[in-house]
Order: sequence, then structure tokens, then C-alpha cells
Amino acid sequence: MSNSFSFTKARWSVQQDKKVYDTPVFSLHEIDLVPENEKVTVPFYVLKAPEWINVIALTSDQQIVLVEQYRAGIHASTLEIPGGMTDPEEEPLTAARRELLEETGFSSEKWTNIGITSSNPAILSNYTHLYLAEECEKRAEQRTDGNEDIAVHVMPFREFLDLIRNGTVHHSIVLAAVSHYLLYRGLSPS
Amino acid sequence: MSNSFSFTKARWSVQQDKKVYDTPVFSLHEIDLVPENEKVTVPFYVLKAPEWINVIALTSDQQIVLVEQYRAGIHASTLEIPGGMTDPEEEPLTAARRELLEETGFSSEKWTNIGITSSNPAILSNYTHLYLAEECEKRAEQRTDGNEDIAVHVMPFREFLDLIRNGTVHHSIVLAAVSHYLLYRGLSPS
Repeated sequence: MSNSFSFTKARWSVQQDKKVYDTPVFSLHEIDLVPENEKVTVPFYVLKAPEWINVIALTSDQQIVLVEQYRAGIHASTLEIPGGMTDPEEEPLTAARRELLEETGFSSEKWTNIGITSSNPAILSNYTHLYLAEECEKRAEQRTDGNEDIAVHVMPFREFLDLIRNGTVHHSIVLAAVSHYLLYRGLSPS
Repeated sequence: MSNSFSFTKARWSVQQDKKVYDTPVFSLHEIDLVPENEKVTVPFYVLKAPEWINVIALTSDQQIVLVEQYRAGIHASTLEIPGGMTDPEEEPLTAARRELLEETGFSSEKWTNIGITSSNPAILSNYTHLYLAEECEKRAEQRTDGNEDIAVHVMPFREFLDLIRNGTVHHSIVLAAVSHYLLYRGLSPS
């Protein structure tokens, strides 16, 4: 943790920031930027969105709790760790506890923030907060929002890693959480 | 690699797909979907974009080649592995070779596809192809596009992992590549 890095590139200056489209999940902004040491203005397109969270949820016998759902972006179903958006004013940890319970019925008393990731710093304004929830137990029924349709799957953590290796689990922010989890646990050759 | 997973959730059906905004990097579509076993139509918002690539570029003495640049989404500079968009009709590996050379001046003769990640299956249509380039050498000068302003940094791979642990490197798709690299190398929680 002792290493530090000194950034050399300054922020570009914002000349204008205009919302050009709004959706329930993000708003699209056209932002006119002036690059460092230049005089021209360049338009960039950025999605502004609330903070997101996701959760590596493990049971006491090292099973992981996963969610399967249809995803409109790729027009296919995915297998992911539980996650979602923070509500307005909601703390990320509160959102993580809420989403895990709503999507899966599982809850935990042992939470660790294992890192943070920029959801996509080129085009998205927000970050995703990455949590580890240990000793998870099923304590309630699933309680999904209006159009959510989620199947819950519980499997050994090692099998989950196999499903990443073979491409079955492929969501970038899920894999970002896994990289932090692997580094958090300390690595050794398998 | 032997594990397989059987998806249980069907694709929702597309009733209408309308482009509502266009940018040089993506187009925003409103897609009206009918959930499985329902009769209502629900609007979703999806960014359609070409395939992306990124590269874990290592020298023969296990240094990693990184790029620092201003990122409009988070209005800050980031430290990342090299990457970018495929050009029309361009193969992902060709794009990876091109982006590594253009952004850093480094090239490699030893390329491995270590995985693929959906850039964000909820809101993005595309995938990012993840490459490992070994025995990289500096063979040219950096040659960036119009408004790119990129600083190249070369550091020991272990130091790069420290910068992930402490949050300095935080791009989700960079971390996705790292998770595949660690699993490819045969590392798992100790």
C-alpha cells in the first residue's frame, strides 16, 4: 500500500456542460472541454449517473451468491454478482445491504469495502463501490423491483472462478470486484 | 474450464429500437422491450459502440507499460493500461497492436487473448477484448490522435498491483483485464 503515483496531466477546463438527453438510469451531457495548453474546444459526451455498488456475497462454506438476469445492453442474460444503484442520499454500504437482500434474500453481518472502481472514466461520471459480504445466510424472500426478473444461483467460489475463465461470467464491473477480492485475499499459485 | 452453466432466463423481445442521440463514440438508443411472460412494454436505454480492446503490456523484465490521460467522464486524469476502440472492420488483435504502438511506441511479437468482458451489459452493447503482450520493446515514438495527450509510465508489475490495491488505478475494464491475467497466470486466493 506504500506506493504512490504522481499524476502529471492536468484536468482539462470545462467551457460548457449541457444535458442533451435524460433517462431513468443516466443523463447524457455534452461537455465542451479545452485541452491543456490548447485553445480549441472539443465536445465530449458523458453519462452522469448515481454511484453504483456490487457485492461478493459468500456463505460460511465458501459458496458465492449470484444473480442471473436479462441485460438490455447486450440483449442476453448474464450471470453476475448482486449489485445496483444507490438511491438518492443513500450510503453505498446501505445500498449494498439493500440490493443483496432484495435481489437474493441473503444478508450478512460481516461487510468489508474491498475497493472502488470508476465504472468507465471515459464516458461515465460515477464509481462502483465493491463489497465483500461474508457468512451470508438466506433470511428473506427475494423482493425485486417492478420489471426485475432475477434467478438466484449459489455455487462454490472455485466454480465461479472457472466460469470467469471460460467467459460465462463477463461483466466488467463484476470482474473488477474479483480483481480486488483476489488481491485482498493475497494470491498464491493454484 | 470444464464447468458449464445453463442460463434459465430468456431474452426479452424487442418491440422497437430507435436511435435518439448520436456521438462519435457511441449512439444512444431507446429500446422498447417486452419482459418474458409479460404483456407490458418497458423502455430501456442502450449505448451502441464498436468493440473495444485493452492490453496488459509487459517487458521481458516484468515491467508494465501504462498510460496516463485526462478522462472526461470523471473529470480527472487516470492511470490505465493501453486500450481503445476498434476501427470499422478491424480485428480486435489488430486494434490492440495498433493502440499499443500509437499510445506508447511499444510493440510485441508475443500476443495472447486472455479473455473478453462485456463493457457494461446493462447499458453498453459492446465487449472489450483483453490481451497480454509479452516481451514488449520500445520501437517507435508515440503517435496519438488529434486531441489525445498521453504520458507513458513503465513500472514493475508488482508496483502496478499495489496501485490497484490503494485505488490509484481504478478503471473497471482495466481491473477486468487484471482479473483475467491473474487467473491466466494461475493465481488464486491464498
